[in-house]
Amino acid sequence: MDYQPRTDDIAALLFGVLDAPQQLGALPAHADTDGALMRQIIDEGGRFVAERIAPLQRTGDETGCRFEAGQVQSPPGFRDAYQAYWQAGWPALACAPEHGGQGLPLVMEAVLYEMLSAANHGWTMAPGLLHGAYDCLRHHASAELRERYLPRVASGEWLATMCLTESHAGSDLGLVRTRATPQADGSYRVAGTKIFISGGEHDLTDNIVHLVLARLPDAPAGPKGLSLVLVPKVLPDGRRNTVVCERIEEKMGLHGSPTCVMRFDDACGWLIGEPQRGLAAMFVMMNAARLHVALQGVGLLEAAWQKADAYAQERRQMRAPRTDGSAGAGPDPIALHPAMRRILDTQRAWIDGGRVLAYHTALELDIAQSHPDTARRDAAQRWCALVTPVLKTACTHQAFHGASECLQVFGGHGYVREWGIEQIVRDSRVAMIYEGTNEIQAIDLLVRKVLPDGAAALCALLDTMAQEPPRQSRGFTAMHQRLARLRALAQDVVAACHRDGTLAYWIADDFLRAVAIAWLDWAWEQIAAAPASGGERWTAPAQALQSWVLPEFDMRHAIITQRMGRAAQATGTHDVR
Amino acid sequence: MDYQPRTDDIAALLFGVLDAPQQLGALPAHADTDGALMRQIIDEGGRFVAERIAPLQRTGDETGCRFEAGQVQSPPGFRDAYQAYWQAGWPALACAPEHGGQGLPLVMEAVLYEMLSAANHGWTMAPGLLHGAYDCLRHHASAELRERYLPRVASGEWLATMCLTESHAGSDLGLVRTRATPQADGSYRVAGTKIFISGGEHDLTDNIVHLVLARLPDAPAGPKGLSLVLVPKVLPDGRRNTVVCERIEEKMGLHGSPTCVMRFDDACGWLIGEPQRGLAAMFVMMNAARLHVALQGVGLLEAAWQKADAYAQERRQMRAPRTDGSAGAGPDPIALHPAMRRILDTQRAWIDGGRVLAYHTALELDIAQSHPDTARRDAAQRWCALVTPVLKTACTHQAFHGASECLQVFGGHGYVREWGIEQIVRDSRVAMIYEGTNEIQAIDLLVRKVLPDGAAALCALLDTMAQEPPRQSRGFTAMHQRLARLRALAQDVVAACHRDGTLAYWIADDFLRAVAIAWLDWAWEQIAAAPASGGERWTAPAQALQSWVLPEFDMRHAIITQRMGRAAQATGTHDVR
Repeated sequence: MDYQPRTDDIAALLFGVLDAPQQLGALPAHADTDGALMRQIIDEGGRFVAERIAPLQRTGDETGCRFEAGQVQSPPGFRDAYQAYWQAGWPALACAPEHGGQGLPLVMEAVLYEMLSAANHGWTMAPGLLHGAYDCLRHHASAELRERYLPRVASGEWLATMCLTESHAGSDLGLVRTRATPQADGSYRVAGTKIFISGGEHDLTDNIVHLVLARLPDAPAGPKGLSLVLVPKVLPDGRRNTVVCERIEEKMGLHGSPTCVMRFDDACGWLIGEPQRGLAAMFVMMNAARLHVALQGVGLLEAAWQKADAYAQERRQMRAPRTDGSAGAGPDPIALHPAMRRILDTQRAWIDGGRVLAYHTALELDIAQSHPDTARRDAAQRWCALVTPVLKTACTHQAFHGASECLQVFGGHGYVREWGIEQIVRDSRVAMIYEGTNEIQAIDLLVRKVLPDGAAALCALLDTMAQEPPRQSRGFTAMHQRLARLRALAQDVVAACHRDGTLAYWIADDFLRAVAIAWLDWAWEQIAAAPASGGERWTAPAQALQSWVLPEFDMRHAIITQRMGRAAQATGTHDVR
Repeated sequence: MDYQPRTDDIAALLFGVLDAPQQLGALPAHADTDGALMRQIIDEGGRFVAERIAPLQRTGDETGCRFEAGQVQSPPGFRDAYQAYWQAGWPALACAPEHGGQGLPLVMEAVLYEMLSAANHGWTMAPGLLHGAYDCLRHHASAELRERYLPRVASGEWLATMCLTESHAGSDLGLVRTRATPQADGSYRVAGTKIFISGGEHDLTDNIVHLVLARLPDAPAGPKGLSLVLVPKVLPDGRRNTVVCERIEEKMGLHGSPTCVMRFDDACGWLIGEPQRGLAAMFVMMNAARLHVALQGVGLLEAAWQKADAYAQERRQMRAPRTDGSAGAGPDPIALHPAMRRILDTQRAWIDGGRVLAYHTALELDIAQSHPDTARRDAAQRWCALVTPVLKTACTHQAFHGASECLQVFGGHGYVREWGIEQIVRDSRVAMIYEGTNEIQAIDLLVRKVLPDGAAALCALLDTMAQEPPRQSRGFTAMHQRLARLRALAQDVVAACHRDGTLAYWIADDFLRAVAIAWLDWAWEQIAAAPASGGERWTAPAQALQSWVLPEFDMRHAIITQRMGRAAQATGTHDVR
């Protein structure tokens, strides 16, 4: 069974819960993006995804990418689908009209991307970095570079990569050794080898635009010495640049996406932005890229849920326990068995709550980009900075673990390839690692975003959240109390980390997780406050959230509190454990 | 890096913590199995595993089993290794001397099996069912069948299968349709198709002994109508039986073990035990088989930990946070970073605590088999009945999830095949499903073993545990209190389930999990009470247990209590959610 975009669900959250058209109405750039247009885009996107992308899911895994003599052959159908994709204008959806784009809000791209990832994670890796590269070029590249590359990156006629990692430099980009040497004509010669380059080489497009982190000759050591260089596969005069794909990795999953080792042999490139400001230029696209990874998580879990739900409705084993004493005729669908209901409804709690948070964040990205009011833009920026690492981590964690639970619904059949559920487990695993591992996200949240301002931004955000939803729903009080406890915890954590410089690194993962759970509940209260959220479709996951997800908050709280207590005892000692 | 059996660790737990030789000394059958002999077997077993089995781990995955025209070709080296294995006498380790075995205790076999699974889960599937088949034949088969098959199953010259599952009958074996029709000569004709048969066909041995669940012509519907039939691949007169391997499954992992669809075309077989007592005969081997799956979990997690630990010691990224303000020269090994320490030490908490419980259970199996005192045998039987489903579930859950955490230590490198860690994640996933899914284990514990006697057996077991370890260790009081809370919870659950017949199915998973956490703590108190448990080797995992594992107990307790409260409110209604 291929993934089917459930556009009614998406619309219910985007319109019924988040009032997206109204929010966007406050932005001059999107004042004429009304609900009807948005719905049309969702439906057309859903149709394209279902017809062209979803059917390539298994081929992508089973045939995978082939590598021979520096060339990558994509799985059958991938190139045609990509050509149809960019020619239909999908990559340019949220690009500016002056670059050939349709100027639609980022939230529309977010929805499209979620559907694409659900349908075919491997294929979707190809266009996945386009918008980030577009933003990076748009904001940092010289006029000449923009003229040469921006329209074709905006349209997706050429695909783009981010070349950061080297074999010895992963989470620690300060160790990057690739060098960029200035030439008399203003270009640079780039020398070094990058690994884990998604789409570093392929046959989907005629050219590939590599954005390469490198060090100029006079650069200091560490991350602050890095610059960003644009290195095209094919040079403007039509010659091949000296960019060589050495091999592609054999991976656990994601076989539809070539993960390349790229060697730059004094390749020709041009600096993007200022020297030694490479990481800053790259981080421009980071929040958006990380939000996209969160949406991959949401999409993959939806795809896994669809498979498990369909199987659980069909498969009959044993009688399900009944309270009313009625006798069924023979074995029941396993969807009626409590252990299976729990798995299915819990995933929906994460999918739909995750969607609310992710779409909300995409709207905030739109607001941060073009709201007329500075204070509102700042608030939006704050939302994105704080929510993005939480969503990236929580949604990718749940994609893998929830897909594994969905596999469990199939029993032994889940372990067999033909059902396709094990592919989602394998594919989804990488999202906990790339775009900054989930552990790095947790440090980003606590050490870089909460501690420096004494949790002021986080508390402000929690205060804003506490004022919504507009009317009281059943679990409102409990949600409210949880946010207040999180607020108090954040302040305790700030004080404790002030006394002990290593504490934050011990509790970062639990802190992020506590935040994620509290916000997921907040998202579900948004759903509960919306009209038409009373049916089984919404009440069953809301109940699962209460029963099986929210209790984790207290556990994380207890773990953090216990660790803070130990740190207080140990103050003055050198014991880091 | 291949898995290396760490026999000193195993010996420390078996001798230092569990006093295995002393326990076995009370059994006449094993009175002369002293510590020196046991240690020698562990060391020799470890050497065989390291030299012959571990090096075949990657070939097993990458080449895998090949299927052509009904024949299965094992991965290169598998047959030679298996021939060496049985000819060295390893399968017969714990078989009775009268059947050609060495008569050693089951706990020795358990240790061997843990090491084998850690080294090569796929290969180990082949001999994995031998001892169960041996026990089944020994206790249920006719003298004639025993004479013909028992010695060769004991020695491992012939391998065995369990043929239970059919495409429509997985957890619900009552739906089995395979028929066995009696013939005039006392044999049976078996007709039907079985799926998910591990080692249903292969080239490791010249004959394969299938134990097939089937229905006699006059049998009633449901699980009580099933009989067990022995169907050999090669008949006593040398002809091939009409047992056909139709295909082998393409799976997520475990490629070294052929998972076969087996068609029985009126194949010739002989009844084992009484008609319609097939499940009972099969369940004889269930506790032992499930304990072996738990040991697979322990072994796989150990193998994953070894890889992650070695990588974390070598790989340097960023400076690790320090309390003493010292400055390192350049990036630190990631093993010093808190997020990685947490992952590594937490896995050790599960591995070593799991080992204590699993070896303890194996000793109880020995005691149940041959202790002179009936009451002691009964207590051992109770231990095995209650602890086995908990261990099977908790250890296989942790094998998969902990291996995934270990993968995370590698960052992007973990997702790439060459490091071998992703293979363990894929291989281990199946253990949460087979030998009864983990959800079925949870129901087995609560619905079949705790509720029927009003938790009497469980409470008796908890009382016994509360009397150990022999002297007070640091966390003794907390552990003691947790056991008491578990005892009270069990009694509340019994009362609540008495009022609401469906409740047990909603809380079974959490109940098992609460039990598992409490017992893991108990196991670690056993370690803490042992001599020589003071070093970093044992204190770091003990601390990880306190910090990150034990807090889950309160969460499970809260989930169960909340659900019981809801059930109490809903009594009299028909709402099962």
